Formats: sequence, C-alpha cells, structure tokens
Amino acid sequence: MTTRSRHMALAALLFAVCCKGFAASSATWIWSPGDFEIWLSNQMQVERKERDALFMPFWRFYSHQPLVNFIKDVDLAAPEELRLTVEGKFSVMLDGRFVQGDPHHISLPSGKHVINVQVFNAASPPALYLQGATVRSDATWTVGPVPHYKPPKSAPVRAASWNFDTPDALPSRYKLATREIQAAVIQRGPRSLLVDFGQETIGFVRLKHVTGRGKVALYYGESRDEALSIETCETLDRYSVDADGDFVAAHSRAMRYVNVQLDEGMTVDDVVLMYEYLPLTQRGSFKSSDDELNRIWDVSIRTLELNTREFFLDGIKRDHWVWSGDAAQAYLMNYYSFFDGDTVKRTTWALRGADPVDMHINTILDYSLYWFIGIQDYYRYTGDVDFVKSIYPRMVTLMDFVLGRRNVDGMLEGLPGDWVFVDWAPMPKEGELSVIQLLFARSLEAMADCAALARDDERAVKYRQLAAELKDKTVAAFWDPQRQVLVNRRIGGKQDPLVTRHANMFALMFGYLTPAQAEAVKRNVLKNDAVQKITTPYMRFYELAALSESGQQDYVTAQVKDYWGGMLRDGASCFWEQYDPKQQGAERYAMYGKPFGMSLCHAWGASPVYLFGRYYLGVRPTLPGYQAYVVEPRLGGLQWIEGRVPTPHGDISVSANRTEMRVSAPAGDGVLRFMSATLPHAGGTAIRAVGPEHYEMALKGGEQYVVTYTLPGAH
Amino acid sequence: MTTRSRHMALAALLFAVCCKGFAASSATWIWSPGDFEIWLSNQMQVERKERDALFMPFWRFYSHQPLVNFIKDVDLAAPEELRLTVEGKFSVMLDGRFVQGDPHHISLPSGKHVINVQVFNAASPPALYLQGATVRSDATWTVGPVPHYKPPKSAPVRAASWNFDTPDALPSRYKLATREIQAAVIQRGPRSLLVDFGQETIGFVRLKHVTGRGKVALYYGESRDEALSIETCETLDRYSVDADGDFVAAHSRAMRYVNVQLDEGMTVDDVVLMYEYLPLTQRGSFKSSDDELNRIWDVSIRTLELNTREFFLDGIKRDHWVWSGDAAQAYLMNYYSFFDGDTVKRTTWALRGADPVDMHINTILDYSLYWFIGIQDYYRYTGDVDFVKSIYPRMVTLMDFVLGRRNVDGMLEGLPGDWVFVDWAPMPKEGELSVIQLLFARSLEAMADCAALARDDERAVKYRQLAAELKDKTVAAFWDPQRQVLVNRRIGGKQDPLVTRHANMFALMFGYLTPAQAEAVKRNVLKNDAVQKITTPYMRFYELAALSESGQQDYVTAQVKDYWGGMLRDGASCFWEQYDPKQQGAERYAMYGKPFGMSLCHAWGASPVYLFGRYYLGVRPTLPGYQAYVVEPRLGGLQWIEGRVPTPHGDISVSANRTEMRVSAPAGDGVLRFMSATLPHAGGTAIRAVGPEHYEMALKGGEQYVVTYTLPGAH
Repeated sequence: MTTRSRHMALAALLFAVCCKGFAASSATWIWSPGDFEIWLSNQMQVERKERDALFMPFWRFYSHQPLVNFIKDVDLAAPEELRLTVEGKFSVMLDGRFVQGDPHHISLPSGKHVINVQVFNAASPPALYLQGATVRSDATWTVGPVPHYKPPKSAPVRAASWNFDTPDALPSRYKLATREIQAAVIQRGPRSLLVDFGQETIGFVRLKHVTGRGKVALYYGESRDEALSIETCETLDRYSVDADGDFVAAHSRAMRYVNVQLDEGMTVDDVVLMYEYLPLTQRGSFKSSDDELNRIWDVSIRTLELNTREFFLDGIKRDHWVWSGDAAQAYLMNYYSFFDGDTVKRTTWALRGADPVDMHINTILDYSLYWFIGIQDYYRYTGDVDFVKSIYPRMVTLMDFVLGRRNVDGMLEGLPGDWVFVDWAPMPKEGELSVIQLLFARSLEAMADCAALARDDERAVKYRQLAAELKDKTVAAFWDPQRQVLVNRRIGGKQDPLVTRHANMFALMFGYLTPAQAEAVKRNVLKNDAVQKITTPYMRFYELAALSESGQQDYVTAQVKDYWGGMLRDGASCFWEQYDPKQQGAERYAMYGKPFGMSLCHAWGASPVYLFGRYYLGVRPTLPGYQAYVVEPRLGGLQWIEGRVPTPHGDISVSANRTEMRVSAPAGDGVLRFMSATLPHAGGTAIRAVGPEHYEMALKGGEQYVVTYTLPGAH
Repeated sequence: MTTRSRHMALAALLFAVCCKGFAASSATWIWSPGDFEIWLSNQMQVERKERDALFMPFWRFYSHQPLVNFIKDVDLAAPEELRLTVEGKFSVMLDGRFVQGDPHHISLPSGKHVINVQVFNAASPPALYLQGATVRSDATWTVGPVPHYKPPKSAPVRAASWNFDTPDALPSRYKLATREIQAAVIQRGPRSLLVDFGQETIGFVRLKHVTGRGKVALYYGESRDEALSIETCETLDRYSVDADGDFVAAHSRAMRYVNVQLDEGMTVDDVVLMYEYLPLTQRGSFKSSDDELNRIWDVSIRTLELNTREFFLDGIKRDHWVWSGDAAQAYLMNYYSFFDGDTVKRTTWALRGADPVDMHINTILDYSLYWFIGIQDYYRYTGDVDFVKSIYPRMVTLMDFVLGRRNVDGMLEGLPGDWVFVDWAPMPKEGELSVIQLLFARSLEAMADCAALARDDERAVKYRQLAAELKDKTVAAFWDPQRQVLVNRRIGGKQDPLVTRHANMFALMFGYLTPAQAEAVKRNVLKNDAVQKITTPYMRFYELAALSESGQQDYVTAQVKDYWGGMLRDGASCFWEQYDPKQQGAERYAMYGKPFGMSLCHAWGASPVYLFGRYYLGVRPTLPGYQAYVVEPRLGGLQWIEGRVPTPHGDISVSANRTEMRVSAPAGDGVLRFMSATLPHAGGTAIRAVGPEHYEMALKGGEQYVVTYTLPGAH
C-alpha cells in the first residue's frame, strides 16, 4: 500500500464514520442545535431530591427555541410524497408559499424546490421527522429562527439529531433503557425488606406481587448504614399502593441497598430493580500483571458507566446534575473506554445552554474554563469538526462573558456571584489564583483552535495572541525564582508565598514551563510531601496525569494502588467523591455536614480509566480523530500490560512486557515510541534510534507489529 | 388649598393609583417580568391561519424563563401558615434551607425570614400564588434566575402580576371573556346559512340545536362578498359534527358575515356568536355639532376596542399579530379612550421578547424605533415609573443592537435581513432615509429619559448626547435649502431630490425644525397637493397629528370627513387597513395580491380617537401621569365639541363652543390655553394674556370652570 492509497483509504473510512447520519437510508428526528439537550437537562436536573424536598440547581436555566424553521433545498428527478411527523404546531412552505390542507402529507413535484417547515412548541423542542422517497429529515437540513433568516456573517446552521430514527421515537419522550436485575441478598423483617443489589446501581425499585393496601417507603442507601438510617439517608420515596400485583417506583434512584418499609398487613414476594442505563459498548480495555490494578480498572469502568447517562453526571445519587469540571474529566475517561461522542456532545450543549450569558457555567469560574478545554479535547479525539462549528457561536459568547470579567491586569479572579471552586481543599481563593490563569490561557488556546476550524480567522488571531500574552504574564507573575515553584496566588499585586500542588501540576501538564522549571516543579512540589496533599479523586486526576506526562508511571502505580486500592479495601463497589484513608466506619460517608452526604459513585473517581489508557497503554492522538497518533507503552513497574484503546476507526491494540511489545491499529499514521536497553527488532520493520536508548517506529493501519526489546533498568 | 397641600394631595392620589396591587387584601399570581406576555403572545400569534394553513410569524420567538426564583423578606409578629399554588415543579427554602414535606403548606415562624420559592416550568411561565395571614404573593416580591442571585450593578427585579387574583386563576389558562350575541340577519339556503352579525365582530360561531351528522364548513367574511367567496375568503374552518345539540367552533375568528355550509341531512336552528373580548371601560368620549364626526368617533372606538385584546393587534382578521408600529399608535388612541395601561404593558413586553436580540422587532427597522417611543409615551400618560424600571434592561439591549447597526455616518439604513417599512407607499427605501433618522433621534431621547428614571445616569448622558448629535446631523443632511423641505433620503452620500410627506411631518411633530423651517414644511409639503398623498390610515395618523400640532384643525376636520367619512359612506362598520376612495365594489377588499387580503378592522384606522381627544378637546399631560397638563380646546371649524379625557386620577371634562368653554379635572396642575377675540372671563379666576388674543388660565383639581370668550375669526 502506498502512502497515497493509505491516505485515501483513511479518508474513505473517516467519511463513513463522520457521515453515517447522511448515508442512512431512513430519516431521523431533527431539531435546532442544543435545544434537545437544554430541554432534557432541565427536565433531569430539577428532579434532584434531598429526602422529601426538591433541590433545584442554583444556576440559570436556558430554554429551547420555541419557533424553529427547518429548511431544505431539493432537486427531484420525480415527484414524491412526504410524510411529516412533528413535535409542535407547524406549517409547511414550498418555494415560499404556504401549503394548504393536511400538512402531514405533502406532494412534492419534481424539479428544484425549497422546503420550509416552521414548528412552534413552547413545552419541548420543536422537532421534525420527514420521510419521502429521497427527501428525508437529517443533518443535511438547516435551521433558523424564521424562514429565510440568515444571521449576518454566519454559516447556515445545520439541524441537530441523535438516534431518534422512527416517526414514533419522539425526542420529547426520550427515556433511558431499563432491564430487570435481581437482588443479591434480601433480609426480611416484620414489615420491611432490606435489599442488597450486591453493588452500586440505579433504577426503579419493583416490588413483586404486592398484597394489601397502604403506604410503602423506600429508603435508599449507597451503603448499608445509609439505607438503615431512615432519618438521615439522602434519598427516599413514599408511595401509596392501592392495587394488587407488581408495584414499580415512579422515580429512578441510585443505591446499592434499599430499605423497603411496608404498612401493616402488606406483603411483597420479591424486590428487583428496573436497572436504568444508557446502552454503551465498552471498547477500551486494560489488563496487567497486577490483579488489584485490574480490579481498579473494572470498578472505574463501572463508576464511569453508571454516570454516563442522559449526560455525564457528577454522581448518580447526589447531585445527579451536570457539572462542567466533572464532565471534562469524564470526557477523557470516555475516550479510553466507551468512546461515546454523542454523550460528550449532549453534555457540552447542556452545560452551555443558550444566550445571553450572565453567569459562569454552574456559577463556577473554573467550570466555564474547563468547558472550552473539553471541546478542544473532543475534537482531538474524534476529529468531528462539524460539532466544533456547531457549538462555536456559543463558545464565542461565553468567552465574551469571560473576557468582560478580567481585572486591570487582564487576569481572572472571583467576582461577586462567582464561585471559585478549584478543589475541595483548604486553600485561599480570593485574588488572582495562578491555577485559574493557567486554565484561562488554555481556554484561549482552545478558542483559537476552534475559531480557526470555524473559519473565524479574525478571532483566531485575537485568541492566540491573548493566550500567548496571558501565558507569559502568568508564569512571570506566579513563579518564585528562589523556591523554584509556582505560588498559589497574588493578592493586592503581591505573591502570597503559599504553594499548592494545583497550579504546578496544570503548568506541567499544559507544557507551559521550561524544562528546568518543569524539573524543579516535579521535585519541589509534586513529589514533595511537605506540600499539602490532594484528597479528592478530582484533583488526583490531574496530579497523576501530570506525573505521568513526565514519565513517573512507577510512582503513579504506587499512588493508584494506595488510593483507589484503599477504597476497594474499604468495600467500594464504585469510586467515591472523596477519600481519606484515615477515616473509618460511617464517618467515611459524611460530607457537606450530612452523615450520608458523600457520593459513593462519583465520575471523577474513575480516572484510572484515563490514566491506564493514556499513560500505560500510552495511546493518544497527535492529529484530530487519530489521523495520526502515538503509542508509548509504559509498564509503570508492572510485569506486563495489555489492552485496547478506541479510535474513530476501530481499536488500537497494545500489549507489552519487559522484552516484547505487540501493537496493531486499524488506520492512521502511528508512531510507536519506547526505550530499550538493547537494540530492538520488529521483523523487517525499520526502527529509528532517536536518542540514547530511545526508539521510534512507524505504524501502518491494519498491520500487526511485534517488537523485541529490553526494558531499561528492569533488574 | 395651598400649592404645597395640593401637591401632597396629588402625591397621595398617585400613590393610591400606582400602588393598588400593594394594598390589596389578597394575593395575586406573580411571575418574572415579561414571561407571561412572551408566552401568551407566542401562543396567540401561531394561531393565524390563511385558509387551511397555519401562517406563523416570520420573526424570532423568545421563551419565558424556565426556572424562576421568587424571593421575599418578611418580619412576622406571629407565626403564620402559607398556602402555595404553583404553576410548575417547585421547592421552598426558608432562610437558605429546603423545606421538607408538602411544599404547598408552609409553617412560617415569627420573626425575620427569607422565603425563596424556586419554580421550574418548561411549558408555560413559572408562576406563584402564595397566601398567608399577612404574607402574600404580590409586586413586593422580587425574582431572579436562581436563589440569592443578583446581577452586578442592577436593582432587584420586582415580580410581575396582572389580575389573576385567586388560586385557581392560573395564568397559563388565561382566556378572553365571551358573551353570546345574536345575528342581525340570517339568510337560509338548502344546506347553508349566511349570517350577518350587523357589524364587524369576533368570536366563536355557535350553531344552535344541530341535528344530523356530518361536516360543517364556516367561511368567514368581513364583507358579504368575502363570506360568499368560498374559494378565496381569507379564513375558514372545517369541522365534523357527531353529536346532537349546540356546536361551538373551536377557533375564534373575525367576521361580520359567516357562511355556514352543512352536509346533506343536517339542520341548524339558529346561529349566534360567542363574542370574544377583553373587558374594557370606555372612559374617553367625544361629541360635536357634526354627526358624521360623531359617527367616525364611535366607529373608531369600535375598531380600537376590537383590536384591544390579549395585546393591541394590527387587525382582528389578518394578521391577528402584534406589530410595533401599529401598537405605538394604538397606545396613543388608548390614552384617549380606555386608558388601559395593562394592555400597553403586555404589548410592550410581547413585542420586545427577551435577549439576545438578533433582529428588529417584527424584523422592521422602524418598528424597533417606535417601540422605544411607545414606552416614553406610556410614561408621559401614566407616570408609571415602575414599568419603565422593569423594562429598561431590555430597552438597553435593543438599543445596543440598534447602535451596533449604524453606518459610518452614525445613521441607520436597512441591512440584510431588515425590513424598512415606513409605509405602504411607493417610495425608495434603500440608503439613509430621513424619516428613519428622525425616529432614531426620537428613540435616543426616549432612552435618555428612561435611563434617567432607571437611575442609569451614565447611559442617560450618552443617549442624550447621541440624540442631540443625530438631530443636528439629520436636519443638516436632509434639508434642501433651495426648496425648503426635507428630502426623503441620501444615497451614496448625496441627497436624492425626491420629497415625501413622511420625514417632513415627523420633523414637525417632534419639534426638530426651526419656526421658519416648520412654516416652510407646512406650506411646501403638508399642504402641497403636488407631493405624493398618504393613502394609509397608518401614516394619515402622523400627518394629521403634525397638522394639528401646528393649529390646522380646520383643515384636519375636512380631511377626516373626507377620508374616514368616505369609508363610512362605503359601508364600513370598522375602519380599514387602507382606503382609496377611487376604488369601487369588491376591489376595495383586495390587498397583498389576494381578493380579500385587506383588513376591514385595523387598529391604525382608529386614529380619530387620538386626534379628537388630543387636538380638539386638546388635553395632554405636560408632566408624567398628568401631574401637570394642558387643556387647549380647538373647535376645528365645528359649532361645538364636548367630551372626556381619562387620566390616572379620573377624567378631564371639556366642552367648548364659540363663546363658552367648560373644563373640570380631578387633580393635577392644569393650564387652559385658548384664543379669544375679546377679553375672556371665568368668574373670579384669573386669566393671563400671553400674547395678542392668546390667554392662559390655571386649573385646579376638583373645580368646575366656565370661561366666556369669543372665538377669533368666527364669522
């Protein structure tokens, strides 16, 4: 295969992947971009309960567009009949004239025509399903607020869709899938059943064959202690049962345990769960010579899977909300497991909402910044430029809001109404935080890249320049040349001497430091026990990623076994919101001043999925959508590792022990990078030495490579 | 009564008028300002039909806020129980903590508390009705997107309300009132009834005592010709009847005639109309020695009343939409008839919608400008500063949009997507139109006034300065010193010599011309038959107002009798969208290329209501809300006139003949201005000569004045 033919094969493959919707033989429901996600996330997020009270989000809700015009230009060889199914009141225009009579059936003459379908719906997103012989509602349609309207200087807006591919699959009736699962253990009392599903799960409790009439109370617990604490458990439901037969709870809740309390005289044969889930395919995998790490991978996958739902959630019990900082990490884990781009896109739209912007995403300054970075990450892993173009106008308006809040030094600090979160760590957050400026600079880089993709060259230049200026200014402002560290903040124009890990690990990970600075930061901060430790899996994600970026996988292995292994030893069936090995018994479950306030299934707890895939299997894209990529396996002190990393073109397969590596990839231009103490061999494939003990080898799609080498220092 | 005590009495009166809602003994439904109006206008405007097709607006629809937080600080002497009725899912916080249990009944302890009620509703505006012993939902509550959120630099936003004063009067179920009216004439055919209601009307057709099963078609006509033209009438409804008894049409339609067509074997005893209306009190009145003018007043009132509904409509048949330019005139007519401020406020919110703005109101450049002017007018007539403060943020964002569309000369011209309407008159509309710049300057003056009321001093100064600059620039750019007229436009930096009446009459009415220029314009344009005549009642409004402003009432009387009298002689029962006396028979009803396209009940046809009240009875406020006012009666060539003009404090009563005037007003500082050929007398009241034959007399609230005088030139 020549290079040229390889490129063409890849291009064809990319087309098939990206344009699946276009080539489909049937229509799909379409709507205005973001509308479905804004609407669905509103519906979901207002359902959070804290015991008997609704607990609604404390940030602004946006609305879908109530009036949407769907537009399609067609050129037909023969007349055809169109069948329309519509969510909302609607009218159809053909070539600028309203169609009289039943608008659900339209006769389209042959030749060139412009179809406008105007749909109004206040309650849920205006949506259209249109099916003819050749004309069908799909992503080739465009949308606007009104017929023929085109905002100045902007490209046509493409209709959005997902997987609602039949006329009766109305977007407004969207539900997750369910399937029945059995309890592991049921412990019966006089008027109660304590049910253990064996692991963390979520769904609708189903009481089989209820007899008697009266009240049923369901007290849910992620822990047994919680389910038994009927006065303080976080979630509960109370129902009245007035008919024999199966009773299904109206609300889906997270639990491992449910404590079912019945009125006198009622009986229940069995308790099962209608497990509620988003259908996902686990494409990424990881196995190693260390069983504990393997178990950590499995529990991480379970944790991530449970939180991958309508949107990426923070945690399935509490908050069951969409949080931008949490989601940005879930996206990265997802690229090494389910590679479910749709959930990334839905979450990105839901977090952003619509315009105008008058508060940060989730009200959190740093969460607005992660949102930009998450889009750039999505593009890197998927190469989906259509999504970037689609979301770009809302990137601009959020960035306008952010830029409007800079202080006189051009830096961001918390203004009234802003929550500066960073981490659940005791650290001062007033003034200019170094970590915030780093995230801001990174956001501006993301904006510059996305502006270029959206062909907004003017803004691309502006963002690039702002990013460069801010990067320089930030390192200059927060670098302490004596101690060779980044300090936590500047207040009143002066450095506060406190050092935290946060800014140092982000600067390292973003590559904003000189090699000398990077070495100093590793030594003086990241591997320095005197600097306050990170206690949330949330920030451990970045800490361990930063260490891995600089080749510290051996150290990371030990950290993961200690921290995530610690949760497993404490009985975790999913990973937690926070973990302090020193805490024992029920005190481990307390948070936010509530005895069971902590989430025991928190997406940010699943970061080993990302760490193992990206830094042990060592796979990452170097061009968008894995058009080019690097494989850089690292044993991290283990005897062997093996696994698969999903890409848009199929999975990259990697295995390595101390003397042999095997790699195959379906497509794209790959580079295998590794170190060897001896001269490596790969059959007839050329291996290039790039430094002492450092080698590189080109990888071609569809080939299987076996490399014989010697792991340096493996003694 | 001293001046001071009079001022105090007036202040007390104003307080009672403005604060009625506050002092009411019961609660009222509250929502976030604009939400109800945006939602209701969307619902109403998508119902327009053109025969069998929905005909939806071609401008952007906005949405209500889906999540609203209602806030109240209370300080209670004794505990009380609150009952909540809510449109939406909701939660209640007391002093920052969620209330557990049934949120419809809340126990409030004595002392100081903060109540937050968070309401979510995607389908219709989140709304709250809360009733306790002393705590009640009303305009003393504030609203925000989320608990405790206060946008930077802005005042708390007061909750909005109307007249939904009982828990079961849900805002989302709002309907106009109906009452049954009888047909004037019913002409029966074999399977049809042609029903004449005797005058233009609107409502739900009711077929009494239907027997038989089958289809019913209702062909509506504002004219008999239209109702009989079943292939071309503008509106029709088709129903299936499948039960004996009365059948009521599901849709309210405008008509004078309805042509009822029945299937074979069906019979109908009688046809009546469930007349659909907004309850209004006609406060303004006008009578004169000319019966034709009296009939013009009555038909104008009927025309305005029919179009005063959920909002001020353009016309009740077609479009049944809310148009800003039309509404701005209806507001002014309303101040001299129903004085229904609520409908002005609802219409203003509905027209504006929410943010962000990306197109002009109704897509029409001039209609954005009239919107600003309408708010200033509202404030002048009502003195309702609360409304100005409430709408002001949306004035700023619309003006930002407008300012962002100025050309290099700082002037407005039509950009892609803009409709430059001005009038249904053949005149070029490309380039810089003089009339548009005049409306723009006037809008900036309105903004300056409203900014001052909203305590936004910085913007007040800016708008004032922009207005002054634009005024000077406009007169300089469009004034033709040779011909002593304003030309219609400038294009490519050069005056186009064409002169139209439009800019000249607006400049006159706004007082933007020097006295010499004003005289020249009257002579060279307004009273010059060589300049293209105005053919729409819409622009005749401003033309006759401008002539009246300069004391040409005699001329105006003749014009009104000719034009509006012409419509009456042609059989009008309401005034029309357009009128050309030269057209005969059914051709009078054609417009927009359709045989019955023209509206025969169009709000802008009702301008005599305004002209007679403002320029004949001569009453107008000189301080907001009639704290001060002028009465300047003008006979306009008539023997006598009499009537009443509503104000916030009651009606001002005026009558005049050629030798005597009688005036009384309930409150405020009034000035009677008049001309007399002889020395006038008013019992003991002092009359001041202010020029040759010109006199002024102070008017006090509650007094009856009789002035003896001699009308100059009355020979």
